[in-house]
Amino acid sequence: MRSLLTMILFFGFSSRAFSQSIGYDSLAKKIMIAGLSSGKAYGMLSELSDGIGSRLSGSDNAAKAVQWAKKKMEDLGLDNVHLEPVTVPHWVRGDIEEAAIIRSASLGNRSLKICALGGTIGTPKDGITAEVLEVRSFDQLRALGEKVKGKIVFFNRPMDRSLFSTGAAYMGAVDQRTKGGAEASKYGAVAVLVRSMTTQIDDYPHTGAMIYVDSILKIPAAAVSTVGAELLSGLIAKENNVTVNLKLNSQILPNVESANVVGELRGTEKPNEVITIGGHLDSWDKGRGAHDDGAGSIHCVEALRLLRSLGFKPKRTIRVVLFMNEENGLAGGKAYAEKDRPGEKHIAAIESDHGAFPPRGFSVEADSMTVEKIARWAYALKPLEADRVTKGQSGPDLGELVKKGVPCLGLHTEGQKYFDYHHSDHDTMDKVNERELELGAVAMAVMALVLAEEGL
Amino acid sequence: MRSLLTMILFFGFSSRAFSQSIGYDSLAKKIMIAGLSSGKAYGMLSELSDGIGSRLSGSDNAAKAVQWAKKKMEDLGLDNVHLEPVTVPHWVRGDIEEAAIIRSASLGNRSLKICALGGTIGTPKDGITAEVLEVRSFDQLRALGEKVKGKIVFFNRPMDRSLFSTGAAYMGAVDQRTKGGAEASKYGAVAVLVRSMTTQIDDYPHTGAMIYVDSILKIPAAAVSTVGAELLSGLIAKENNVTVNLKLNSQILPNVESANVVGELRGTEKPNEVITIGGHLDSWDKGRGAHDDGAGSIHCVEALRLLRSLGFKPKRTIRVVLFMNEENGLAGGKAYAEKDRPGEKHIAAIESDHGAFPPRGFSVEADSMTVEKIARWAYALKPLEADRVTKGQSGPDLGELVKKGVPCLGLHTEGQKYFDYHHSDHDTMDKVNERELELGAVAMAVMALVLAEEGL
Repeated sequence: MRSLLTMILFFGFSSRAFSQSIGYDSLAKKIMIAGLSSGKAYGMLSELSDGIGSRLSGSDNAAKAVQWAKKKMEDLGLDNVHLEPVTVPHWVRGDIEEAAIIRSASLGNRSLKICALGGTIGTPKDGITAEVLEVRSFDQLRALGEKVKGKIVFFNRPMDRSLFSTGAAYMGAVDQRTKGGAEASKYGAVAVLVRSMTTQIDDYPHTGAMIYVDSILKIPAAAVSTVGAELLSGLIAKENNVTVNLKLNSQILPNVESANVVGELRGTEKPNEVITIGGHLDSWDKGRGAHDDGAGSIHCVEALRLLRSLGFKPKRTIRVVLFMNEENGLAGGKAYAEKDRPGEKHIAAIESDHGAFPPRGFSVEADSMTVEKIARWAYALKPLEADRVTKGQSGPDLGELVKKGVPCLGLHTEGQKYFDYHHSDHDTMDKVNERELELGAVAMAVMALVLAEEGL
Repeated sequence: MRSLLTMILFFGFSSRAFSQSIGYDSLAKKIMIAGLSSGKAYGMLSELSDGIGSRLSGSDNAAKAVQWAKKKMEDLGLDNVHLEPVTVPHWVRGDIEEAAIIRSASLGNRSLKICALGGTIGTPKDGITAEVLEVRSFDQLRALGEKVKGKIVFFNRPMDRSLFSTGAAYMGAVDQRTKGGAEASKYGAVAVLVRSMTTQIDDYPHTGAMIYVDSILKIPAAAVSTVGAELLSGLIAKENNVTVNLKLNSQILPNVESANVVGELRGTEKPNEVITIGGHLDSWDKGRGAHDDGAGSIHCVEALRLLRSLGFKPKRTIRVVLFMNEENGLAGGKAYAEKDRPGEKHIAAIESDHGAFPPRGFSVEADSMTVEKIARWAYALKPLEADRVTKGQSGPDLGELVKKGVPCLGLHTEGQKYFDYHHSDHDTMDKVNERELELGAVAMAVMALVLAEEGL
């Protein structure tokens, strides 16, 4: 193992043809064989997702996950394992059942599957009862103007199923969830219901962040399952004055001190040049954060474990960072980017936040020349059919590094099912395949190794 | 829609650059949009897999599936819908519970999860009881020689988990299942147990074909779950004289008349030049043949439905063939290839028999120049990330066409989970994702369209 790398390092990768012929694809195969035959990713994800459970920022479970991850990195023998403090919001769903009941002329009372959106305030104890107005865009909302006053606004623009990229479909619909509450409140709405962000028609609500604007009155916001959204929409089309009673008992509590968890494989020649690989340790409180983003977190820890266990000693430092608070604030990503690190230079950063699905390649958020440069190393990922390198977004926790000009990458996975589970009770270990999860870790290890050897 | 194709046809695709710039990738996008937004694949597969169920050759369900498929093609308005007769074997698992019980000094009696391998004879009513000998290869079996006499041989070579291709791992282990019975019988074994063909460690036996040799005494053969295989292997390592009582009541009944189901989109310019696309309609009797090969069958029917519904009128004929008896005899593939079709020429054939998983490309079984030629059209499949075209095996039902020199292709899908479900009770609709299934149909439609327009 080492002899091949040593030989390659000796020749200094000066010729692309040379390194292509006996280079990183051979190393990738060895990493993959180790991963597929004796990988630890599934077991580690099971400890995190089954053992600890959901890990919303500020929760006891999030604190447990931080301690678990630190100990795991120490046990694996990573270098320089430590916590970096992050102040996070502390929102709780509440301990009384959240509920919504439709009252319609034709159906009578019918309960809807809903859940509070992350960050929302609660309702009064008896809930809020009001007529529901359906809209599919902020333009439609604006056009309704005065009619919105005193109503519950129901945002019902579906994710565009015709798009290959479910991520693009999500981006085309998620403004309803993030901004719907504030937008509707501007016109006097008393609450909002938002169609769940999924391409499936099923009866599970999907939560996610909603954001209040300081100058606008806060109103409660909930997600409704897509089955519920179709039912509600059908009723509104047929009847006047369809009302809903919405009960939420969510609360915004004081901020909490938490942490990013950091460990390294120190570089042998240029230890101050760093390739960061990360996922986010926090999750929503629905489900158990198996895909989002337990998988991404474990991808990174397992990538370093694999490289270490195979005896790789890369030139530059590969650092795993498990970010806290991606879901509702991005405080971990910001804290990481803002921390003063004298003498240190970020060569690149890679995030995995697209689930435990089979890796297909990397999306590179950088100038075109850098994208080209990274694409030239894609051949290394051919043995695992993850050699698709394109220009595009990297990862949510890397936003601040991108602003600082650091070339950032995101692991691109097979994404057709991602939003079936995302932010819902379905994001659990039984949706994770051991081999697919492990291959994600292998892809992260290979790309990190190439960047740590080659620089940019 | 038509205008773009007409324009392309008008210019005759003489320039590769031209067709790449406004060509098949644009058409592929339109097919994909139609498939993802209003595809019918999932509904059709549900009718076949949930509605009819498993479809082993010779069974009533297989006969129902033939009639269902014929009517479906007629209802969809396909051209020249007809049945082509195929004589198939008729093996039945039997209606008394199949069972195996370990008798060991340390464990006492412990039941093992087993199932009869397809094609096996049954045991006497009280079963066969004998000591179990474990081997991992035919060489090991040969070395045991006389010791095999009167014993149950347990073939326990696992699929190689370290391989990326689970298909390759399967090919490296499946000889134990197909030939193990005959090989062990040569040395006087009374029955065989074969480790299930899966990379998972779970407690579900996976069936599949075993083949007797006329000159060798037939002995019963069963698959044991991988959990059972590990248990049995552990006991044999610790104890002498671990015995198993094996009860099977399978039977080989007289052959049955069945059929391949055929429908077409007749070519407008060269109708006698044919691109065949196919899957196999039969399945094992475990599970409901959702992935294997309900998915492949539906891929082909949906591909023609999509092309037809979008108004495509390709130059050459695209013919869907739903083959009967892939699983235990390949009679359908042989009958199709051997049938006299005066004046007709097969340009190419494509099989889908790797499940409803996301398509990644095509494996081409042809000379290198033809592979190169087809690989040049791979850009068309980029919109669905299925542009991986490599030289390799096509599909089991195309074996006879390959021998006749017809370039044959196989749909290459994301395969990490395929053998989790394959030939077991787990091959059911709940393991199929609607979008992934539909994308397979889109990939088949695009490749068939390109070949029907371009020829080879």
